[in-house]
Amino acid sequence: MKVIADLCIVPLGVGVSLGRYIAECEKVLKAAGLSTRLHAYGTNVEGDWDEVMSAIKRCHEVLHAMGVPRISSTLRFGTRTDREQTIEDKVRSVQGQLP
Amino acid sequence: MKVIADLCIVPLGVGVSLGRYIAECEKVLKAAGLSTRLHAYGTNVEGDWDEVMSAIKRCHEVLHAMGVPRISSTLRFGTRTDREQTIEDKVRSVQGQLP
Amino acid sequence: MKVIADLCIVPLGVGVSLGRYIAECEKVLKAAGLSTRLHAYGTNVEGDWDEVMSAIKRCHEVLHAMGVPRISSTLRFGTRTDREQTIEDKVRSVQGQLP
Amino acid sequence: MKVIADLCIVPLGVGVSLGRYIAECEKVLKAAGLSTRLHAYGTNVEGDWDEVMSAIKRCHEVLHAMGVPRISSTLRFGTRTDREQTIEDKVRSVQGQLP
Repeated sequence: MKVIADLCIVPLGVGVSLGRYIAECEKVLKAAGLSTRLHAYGTNVEGDWDEVMSAIKRCHEVLHAMGVPRISSTLRFGTRTDREQTIEDKVRSVQGQLP
Repeated sequence: MKVIADLCIVPLGVGVSLGRYIAECEKVLKAAGLSTRLHAYGTNVEGDWDEVMSAIKRCHEVLHAMGVPRISSTLRFGTRTDREQTIEDKVRSVQGQLP
Repeated sequence: MKVIADLCIVPLGVGVSLGRYIAECEKVLKAAGLSTRLHAYGTNVEGDWDEVMSAIKRCHEVLHAMGVPRISSTLRFGTRTDREQTIEDKVRSVQGQLP
Repeated sequence: MKVIADLCIVPLGVGVSLGRYIAECEKVLKAAGLSTRLHAYGTNVEGDWDEVMSAIKRCHEVLHAMGVPRISSTLRFGTRTDREQTIEDKVRSVQGQLP
């Protein structure tokens, strides 16, 4: 089963500058071979369900290993059986309707 | 790694009455032996990371097998290394500070 | 326009014990006269759109005034024109289908 | 108070092809003069709190007027008092730490 997801990881207990932690998660997702697209409030991720979820678990593990005591994340995730769809398809399905 | 999560599953393409689909997901979570707590916009779930994520995958699989062509879900999920915490602990940590 | 929402406020830069801040937000929502229901990963809120959104803004303002330098919140929010629905109705629509 | 938000609007009861509805919301956000950035699972929006929230309300109103009977949306939203930050700053704070 394929999933398109949007992940936002929020490390707690390490101050207010979080870019360094988010960058580590980007590396984890890339190392897992997943297609990603960073934006200002999260990252689009696409791939096989198990691979995506396994990489997200690894993100939490890596941040805890860096000394982050608590993490509160949010994930949007969609699956569909009617047709195949990529991150690019989703963006195009909206942009194609804009002037 | 233990996780406390909050799951909201939104089936698409099956009209506006979704209670029946959400009820199926509740059954899946219960059948997985997870501790859950239903509310008006989702369900608190707590347990071992792999068991929680595996049950969530099963929810999507079961809904698709029921004929739902598309699902868009959201998950909040938290892990911590500083101490153990349950769903009840989290609610108490707030209610204990209310008059 | 009526809205049923689920709010999760995450204060950043104030350590890992957040119960005290969430309790303040509960007081703000109550003071606004809104119907709420606390759970382990947020709070159900129901009411007129403008009143709900205005109370959520007040939550952020109150936390910043308490010294919280950064806040990252998430909101699920639903509106419908087909029928009236309360927090209790939503929970019942699922529980009524469970054994 | 300035807010950086990430909005994902999910129309229910109108089938599984939603691009046309999301495109209408993009137009509403643009017409409100807000800075936005579309991605595969939502849209980054930045601006004054009241203007952002007012435009989001308008999105729901416009979709209901188009005949959408039910909408279930999610919003991530962040405010901070320690410094000014834009959508571009947030992306750069992560990308600057990547190889």
